Amino acid sequence: MQSRGYAVLAAKADLVPYQFERRELGDQDVAFDIAFSGICHSDIHQAREEWGSALFPMVPGHEIVGKVTAVGSAVSKFQIGDTIGVGVFIDSCRECDYCKQGLQQYCAQGMTGTYNGYERDGKTIAFGGYSDNYVINQNYAVKVPTNLELSGVAPLMCAGITLYSPLKHWNAGPGKRVGIIGLGGLGHMGLKFAKALGAHTTVFSHSPQKEADAKAMGADDFVVTKDPANLKALASSFDLILNTVSADLNIELYLNLLKVDATLVVIGLPSNPYSVSAGTLLSKRRSLAGSMIGGIPELQEMIDFCGEHNILSEVEVISADYINQAYDRTVASDVKYRFVIDASTF
Amino acid sequence: MQSRGYAVLAAKADLVPYQFERRELGDQDVAFDIAFSGICHSDIHQAREEWGSALFPMVPGHEIVGKVTAVGSAVSKFQIGDTIGVGVFIDSCRECDYCKQGLQQYCAQGMTGTYNGYERDGKTIAFGGYSDNYVINQNYAVKVPTNLELSGVAPLMCAGITLYSPLKHWNAGPGKRVGIIGLGGLGHMGLKFAKALGAHTTVFSHSPQKEADAKAMGADDFVVTKDPANLKALASSFDLILNTVSADLNIELYLNLLKVDATLVVIGLPSNPYSVSAGTLLSKRRSLAGSMIGGIPELQEMIDFCGEHNILSEVEVISADYINQAYDRTVASDVKYRFVIDASTF
Repeated sequence: MQSRGYAVLAAKADLVPYQFERRELGDQDVAFDIAFSGICHSDIHQAREEWGSALFPMVPGHEIVGKVTAVGSAVSKFQIGDTIGVGVFIDSCRECDYCKQGLQQYCAQGMTGTYNGYERDGKTIAFGGYSDNYVINQNYAVKVPTNLELSGVAPLMCAGITLYSPLKHWNAGPGKRVGIIGLGGLGHMGLKFAKALGAHTTVFSHSPQKEADAKAMGADDFVVTKDPANLKALASSFDLILNTVSADLNIELYLNLLKVDATLVVIGLPSNPYSVSAGTLLSKRRSLAGSMIGGIPELQEMIDFCGEHNILSEVEVISADYINQAYDRTVASDVKYRFVIDASTF
Repeated sequence: MQSRGYAVLAAKADLVPYQFERRELGDQDVAFDIAFSGICHSDIHQAREEWGSALFPMVPGHEIVGKVTAVGSAVSKFQIGDTIGVGVFIDSCRECDYCKQGLQQYCAQGMTGTYNGYERDGKTIAFGGYSDNYVINQNYAVKVPTNLELSGVAPLMCAGITLYSPLKHWNAGPGKRVGIIGLGGLGHMGLKFAKALGAHTTVFSHSPQKEADAKAMGADDFVVTKDPANLKALASSFDLILNTVSADLNIELYLNLLKVDATLVVIGLPSNPYSVSAGTLLSKRRSLAGSMIGGIPELQEMIDFCGEHNILSEVEVISADYINQAYDRTVASDVKYRFVIDASTF
């Protein structure tokens, strides 16, 4: 299938218009016209080859939403006209314990990324969502509720599930105190989900000027982290804290905010390791954990939850020719809260 | 009550014979003659004031077992002649959520240590178990099954519960693969408990010469950690790993051995913080946690479990005049696997 999009032709190069072929529709595949494609900070890391060797030409994009235009002969999950979403992976081994449990993100053989790698055949380059259309196996896409504004849906496929999954896994809900470190593309989704799940939600941010937004999105408390005294006053009072910040931070300050048996979950990938004292963990049986996106069943659960609660990412819609500026602004944290490309401009 | 024991009169001084008064028997108290008192590495840290300011004169000892000689008028839990054990704490606030749940070790006001501090009244120095007798509130002691050899029971009150509690909390049992890092006073208890709970148990040790002991105590596998290749071969294969080693180690090597959703629990207190990469945690939703002894209900559960499975600490029984040498040998890891003082020699 002929596709038109934007690609990086070599590490650190600007993105440029690019035409390429996607695979033809197989029995189990659906084809769809992309409506919107989100820009994730990880797109930038990969396009700039900051996370190890990358595969060029690269069409980034793993926050993809659009409308089905064709279905393969064995497709039962989707019909032409359905709204459909694709996230961070497009396939997995399908046979390991984790795939069988619907935890494809932890596939024992490794998930097949939406771009910057090969499809399961080991030779077809997987091109991502910065383009006008897409082909995917039906079992690796989800159905999007029709009441949701699609531009705000795209980032749910990565930023959304990345926060929803740990909140569910570690039982955020009524009676629980949840903290979200950072109010960016990830953090604002964590705030919305934690509130919708019924938890008392505190946002930790180094930017006092984000308080109004945090409160507007439902934060019960907003804590400016520049002054460590603000944190110390909250010692041992949280059931769950999610760290969405990829900058290096003193994780001890936040581990100390956990109650007995509570967990701090890291989601971002800072350049340097965390420094963790055994005593901080063992004095209250605390845990430091990590979480990575979610599996297909949970991705469907999340998007259905968003449909019920009308939860969307806050986005700035751009046209394709603005991607390079959007990258620079994302790196500078100058976006509220996620850039989304209008795919009609490819 | 008049007591005779061994005390440290000033930081880093040798232990010397010492006579002192314990409180008189209260309504809720039991008095007992100590039979054996274990030497824990933490005794040495405190006697040498290596863990911050300490209180002298100090009678160490928080692994205490003996026979009840008198009971207060309101005591229902014990009778004269019962075998009784006391561990790391002798009181707590009794009112916080954790105390009410039987998690007194995590008391919101802080547990009352068995020595090196004051009793709950804030003025009576708490003297520990290196002595001939003891007085304690009935609710902070446990009943010891009569079939157990008492010298091997004493270390169960600290080393034992320190391993039993996390094994139970993180569900060690049939079908689970458990790793124990270090085969010392703590580690050998972890091995015995993990096996008795039905888990497949691997011991990690830097000492190849410990393999025979590990196998004799039931280890399914023994891994020499000097060669990192031995660890890499076991990537993503453990459900639970307990680190009993207080020396600094590369915790990443062990976090990588955890399956999806598995946990590494730290028990010792190394001098330096651990270095932990976010990616190692989030790529498989792993957790790094800590655990500290156990509450009174779990202490009773553990000692009953030991009675049923005839589990004891491996000990070297010494007389009181050998304590100072025993300290030096403990620091040098020259003990199999725990020194226990015969209290008849005080």
